[in-house]
Amino acid sequence: MALGEFELIRRFFEQPAKRALLGIGDDCALLAAPARHAALAVTTDMLVCDRHFLADAPPASIGHKALAVNLSDLAAMGAAPVGFTLALALPQVDEAWLAEFSAGLLALASATGCELLGGDTTRGPLTISITAIGEVPPGAALRRDAAQAGDDVWVSGSLGAAALAVREALAGRPLPEAHPARCRMERPQARLSLGLALRSLAHAAIDVSDGLISDLGHVCDRSRLGAHIDWNAVPVDASLAALSEDERKTLALSGGDDYELLFTAKPSRRDAIQALRDRLGLAVTRIGQISDQPGIRITGADARAVVLERGGFDHFA
Amino acid sequence: MALGEFELIRRFFEQPAKRALLGIGDDCALLAAPARHAALAVTTDMLVCDRHFLADAPPASIGHKALAVNLSDLAAMGAAPVGFTLALALPQVDEAWLAEFSAGLLALASATGCELLGGDTTRGPLTISITAIGEVPPGAALRRDAAQAGDDVWVSGSLGAAALAVREALAGRPLPEAHPARCRMERPQARLSLGLALRSLAHAAIDVSDGLISDLGHVCDRSRLGAHIDWNAVPVDASLAALSEDERKTLALSGGDDYELLFTAKPSRRDAIQALRDRLGLAVTRIGQISDQPGIRITGADARAVVLERGGFDHFA
Repeated sequence: MALGEFELIRRFFEQPAKRALLGIGDDCALLAAPARHAALAVTTDMLVCDRHFLADAPPASIGHKALAVNLSDLAAMGAAPVGFTLALALPQVDEAWLAEFSAGLLALASATGCELLGGDTTRGPLTISITAIGEVPPGAALRRDAAQAGDDVWVSGSLGAAALAVREALAGRPLPEAHPARCRMERPQARLSLGLALRSLAHAAIDVSDGLISDLGHVCDRSRLGAHIDWNAVPVDASLAALSEDERKTLALSGGDDYELLFTAKPSRRDAIQALRDRLGLAVTRIGQISDQPGIRITGADARAVVLERGGFDHFA
Repeated sequence: MALGEFELIRRFFEQPAKRALLGIGDDCALLAAPARHAALAVTTDMLVCDRHFLADAPPASIGHKALAVNLSDLAAMGAAPVGFTLALALPQVDEAWLAEFSAGLLALASATGCELLGGDTTRGPLTISITAIGEVPPGAALRRDAAQAGDDVWVSGSLGAAALAVREALAGRPLPEAHPARCRMERPQARLSLGLALRSLAHAAIDVSDGLISDLGHVCDRSRLGAHIDWNAVPVDASLAALSEDERKTLALSGGDDYELLFTAKPSRRDAIQALRDRLGLAVTRIGQISDQPGIRITGADARAVVLERGGFDHFA
């Protein structure tokens, strides 16, 4: 017999409230106000089957990714995670799928101290919508509009691997499950510790979800500035090593889904930012500079074509 | 040419931030912490096309309802609305649809002081997921588990009209657009003022979304108590007057979607609660009592069959 809605929630999602004053099971969850006049950071991402993940993707990965992309937005704001709500439309109740999905979701929730506060389940085409709440002292938030002319442009980790895995999957030749690029696509890591560390070091930040050029474009637009990027400095993921220069550019500059942090900071912060590499075990690479000339210029072997052709991912383009 | 994702957001949804420190357009919205140590109330509801609304429903009504059902959860908690996020999956960009949808959504947002903080748009089967945030002094929150034996059971407004409209629509004979029951289905009114007024008067509260018996059952389960309801006291909506007694019982006791508030309070509060009717222009009716005997008993002309057969709406039943 199929599980009912309430039993489904109880069995796969209900957990004892930790930081929440009141968790799953009432009209609303209750959350104590943040301490020391921090502001709340709120973000929402919706994942649709066959658009943001493939129907046959491992359910635990889908659960992980649905939360990770929201945590990445908190990281890009310099916010510490507090909790999240989950809205879930399911075509049918598949207990094995739900068990794995919730395990992947709740493992990441637990690892990042981001508590499941409540949610909604309904029947419908497989869709996952998560709203995550974090906290950040308002003056320390890493806003997109806070870049300054002369700032260095930095990016964490490496770029292009997730886009490679997406490309191969869409072309009907999916990478093996254990391939590092496939892991980057299916199990992105939100750069939460980096976001917290950047509160006192960076001006602006954004997570690379649409593609480096597109996301840098958002920072430049909001800050009413431009940028210059040195293609030779861009940390292209090792899994792209065998590809042509054009493919590497396309994937690393315009491919999305890497969920690295792109941020800007005063040149006087270089040493402090480089020191984060050892402290966090995460590469941070200086790839260019913010300028008061509008537009994004890429230098290093002919990258212009890529930039002009592809501005990053737009769900309705 | 179809609108892109960012232009779509700018054109139909972006508004100047009011209470938010930072609104649409960054990785997260920023919201100042609530004053006077209030807690945050957080709720999520997802609406799926052809399940929660019909594809050809007026888009403004869909926008209204998607927010209203979340506001109703805030009302049932005694919380004052602060803001909300919107996740929207759209099969295609239909500008006329979007203009009406956002008008209906934002009109209710404006009328209730619940600001659109941010969101996500993607292509996919038409699905709307809203997370609303409110605030409430934690000790004043109207929790489901707070009913006490001997409490009166009250309900606001009238019951059954929305369920009648749903029944007729599903049977292929939709009520005329201006029919009051159809308005109840398409444009539910969240009982926000009542929820606020009940902070100091009621013990437990819930909104009637699944059906009176089912929702009262949630209160009883959480409070580990039972209830006795007098069918003859239940405020059945006038639009059900011509129906048989059985139909009226089914719709008023087990039909959902009315979004009235069901609440419990000490008998000593009767006069104060009755006085709300004049102050708020909203009927409040005493329909029974909380008891320390488990289960829900209905008295008045043979209502048992209804109760036993139908426990309210379950999306996976």
